Amino acid sequence: MSLPQIDHTHDAAATSWVESANGHGDFPVQNLPYGVFCRGGGRPQIGVAIGDHILDLAGTASAGLLRDADASWLAGSSLNALMAFSPDERLTLRRALFELLTNERHRAAVTPHLKPADACTLHLPAAIGDYTDFYVGIHHANNVGALFRPDNPLLPNYKYVPIGYHGRASSIRPSGVPVVRPKGQRKVPEQDAPIVGPTVRLDYELELGVWIGEGNALGEPIAMTDAARHIAGYCLLNDWSARDFQAWEYQPLGPFLAKSFQSTISPWVITAEALAPFRIAQPARPQGDPAPLPYLFDTADQASGALAIKLSASIVTARMRQTGQAPYRLSEGPASNMYWTAAQIVTHHASNGCNLNPGDLLGTGTISAPTIDGYGSLLEISNGGKTPITLPSGEARTFVEDGDEILLTATAHADGFVSIGFGQCRAIVLPAQ
Amino acid sequence: MSLPQIDHTHDAAATSWVESANGHGDFPVQNLPYGVFCRGGGRPQIGVAIGDHILDLAGTASAGLLRDADASWLAGSSLNALMAFSPDERLTLRRALFELLTNERHRAAVTPHLKPADACTLHLPAAIGDYTDFYVGIHHANNVGALFRPDNPLLPNYKYVPIGYHGRASSIRPSGVPVVRPKGQRKVPEQDAPIVGPTVRLDYELELGVWIGEGNALGEPIAMTDAARHIAGYCLLNDWSARDFQAWEYQPLGPFLAKSFQSTISPWVITAEALAPFRIAQPARPQGDPAPLPYLFDTADQASGALAIKLSASIVTARMRQTGQAPYRLSEGPASNMYWTAAQIVTHHASNGCNLNPGDLLGTGTISAPTIDGYGSLLEISNGGKTPITLPSGEARTFVEDGDEILLTATAHADGFVSIGFGQCRAIVLPAQ
Repeated sequence: MSLPQIDHTHDAAATSWVESANGHGDFPVQNLPYGVFCRGGGRPQIGVAIGDHILDLAGTASAGLLRDADASWLAGSSLNALMAFSPDERLTLRRALFELLTNERHRAAVTPHLKPADACTLHLPAAIGDYTDFYVGIHHANNVGALFRPDNPLLPNYKYVPIGYHGRASSIRPSGVPVVRPKGQRKVPEQDAPIVGPTVRLDYELELGVWIGEGNALGEPIAMTDAARHIAGYCLLNDWSARDFQAWEYQPLGPFLAKSFQSTISPWVITAEALAPFRIAQPARPQGDPAPLPYLFDTADQASGALAIKLSASIVTARMRQTGQAPYRLSEGPASNMYWTAAQIVTHHASNGCNLNPGDLLGTGTISAPTIDGYGSLLEISNGGKTPITLPSGEARTFVEDGDEILLTATAHADGFVSIGFGQCRAIVLPAQ
Repeated sequence: MSLPQIDHTHDAAATSWVESANGHGDFPVQNLPYGVFCRGGGRPQIGVAIGDHILDLAGTASAGLLRDADASWLAGSSLNALMAFSPDERLTLRRALFELLTNERHRAAVTPHLKPADACTLHLPAAIGDYTDFYVGIHHANNVGALFRPDNPLLPNYKYVPIGYHGRASSIRPSGVPVVRPKGQRKVPEQDAPIVGPTVRLDYELELGVWIGEGNALGEPIAMTDAARHIAGYCLLNDWSARDFQAWEYQPLGPFLAKSFQSTISPWVITAEALAPFRIAQPARPQGDPAPLPYLFDTADQASGALAIKLSASIVTARMRQTGQAPYRLSEGPASNMYWTAAQIVTHHASNGCNLNPGDLLGTGTISAPTIDGYGSLLEISNGGKTPITLPSGEARTFVEDGDEILLTATAHADGFVSIGFGQCRAIVLPAQ
């Protein structure tokens, strides 16, 4: 597998003449994530986050500052065409942006194309053709499996099949768009028939999203050795879930309305290139687990296909907001609690010939750590709603209440490199209509 | 519910000056389905099937023959914009086309815009944003449930919830595109680990597809009384399935790679307006079944929300093709074997606020009749692969073999009206690569 390599764009000593980028927790010049933004209701356009600013790429290119850039991908209001780039094209663009933003001699020409981020609205970065959600967080699968099937938490296929299912693309929204508490059917044991109303077990799920880069043709699987070139980048994903609807509807065909009311993603695409320094070995499987089947096994992927990313989820209730309290951390844990790598889920997805397209989104599934401080959903933290947690405000929570905001963040760390962040994935819950 | 009404465009005495339309089993002038076609590798464009011809709508409009037509929806290569029409706009266009094709005085002006259908290639009619497959064929659910869960065929939610799951939109192909036998994991009882290879239980599923018309905004459910305006039309859908992959992978999140390698649809959109004369009462539920919950119940929908459509599936093997044998009918049955109407699945889908968009596709799930001559899949016909059928060629089949072609057709019938058909939904199976 040909993974993105570490080069001068990862140099820890590099700084930007955009001063807010230096020491910026999310967007130093070593990150350079792509997104789609607009100002004051204008047309959405493509940009790059740098410190507290967004570089307008169409403006930069039309000023002749991105000489190799083919204008066609810049004209759109989504990153789909950019995501279709080959790894070489991606690298060329990254290096050009790094040069523009680190070399002082470009300051005067580039500065007019920098927009203050807090004056911009961020949109979905791509028109998402298809969205697939996996289930690779093995501790989550164990925890949830034990709640739904106490005698049978991990099914026999789990360690052979990267379990996934198709999700709803139309209702994915960027960070900041509120979530309306959905209505639906739920079954209470005391009654024969289900009842209909707002969910009483609204939950978040802490996931990574994987943006598909180059696509594959229908009927042409993606070998593990080619998987990396099909991954454009990553984001955070909150797979909002109505646990009561899910328990009632999910058999035999899987989750449906329990998930499709909305999913929230962080709007910046953290590129595979930016993450090159943060690659780590895929953790060894526990003794006795089967090795991945040959079509899912690649030595290079096992050696460096996981990512040193710390994920966290926090909550701010309405009362906490009113009294100015900081978000309360619900969980924090490493992304390496994935039983399968991103490359493995890409290869598995296409193994039957299914065609993936640039801008498709794959969710990893909830990434929980083995202990409660790293559980990636309230279902797990509250032990299926049986054990409320108490927030610093004195409020108790088993599930998400109206007015609560859930905030996901992620940071990649590696010794000798500048850490990079994902930006925010947040949404506030509004009452059912 | 405001359902499309019967008007002069359904008049059984009406004939077209396009002579092949009169007596045409699929496309008489009472049908007027929309599609996307091209000739000789040209740009795909919007057309209407009339007998053995296709009327080029962009050409017709640019000649000034569709005076009320807003050109914007004609410029595209898909029907998405047309599907977004309001019911009034849909009706206006239908009436204008009916006038052009029935009134002799338009013959000279319109004739240049008629293309021989057999010289055209048909494309997917819409860019399918999201595809959802339901499971409303109750006899199919019973039959398949008994194979997968002998002691528990119909789960307790079935009669309350129109069970559905998200499917893969990217791999939907129009009639005529071959299907490559997919590879994947399957588990044989004799071995501990799954094996990887081409499916040995490739199956078809006989379904209706429902094209979404007007969309709904995220967070805004669709009431039963409004559901009809969100249905633009119908097609045939073959939900190809690898039963061995499905049995191994489907728990706990539902079918995934067993279905996503390809789905085949008939390329003509049979409009809700064309089907007005074929509306019938939804069959009464068996004694003891619960009534639909209030949000899924509408008197008008119960009275006329089902469709008098006869569905059939046939097979042609390679040997049959070589010896010129006609397709062999595997099954035939009425679409009224749906436990839920199209309006009910639309309303259920949006009941949690999920937004549906013009050009989204919903599958009904396999529509089987209660007896074997109407079973809509080989899984059911062969009793889970245990009882082969013998074809007139002398060949035996439990599942679909390489070189077999599966052909789905459908016809709507009603006394006093001209029958209309759906055209063909066919695809040949090629060996695994």
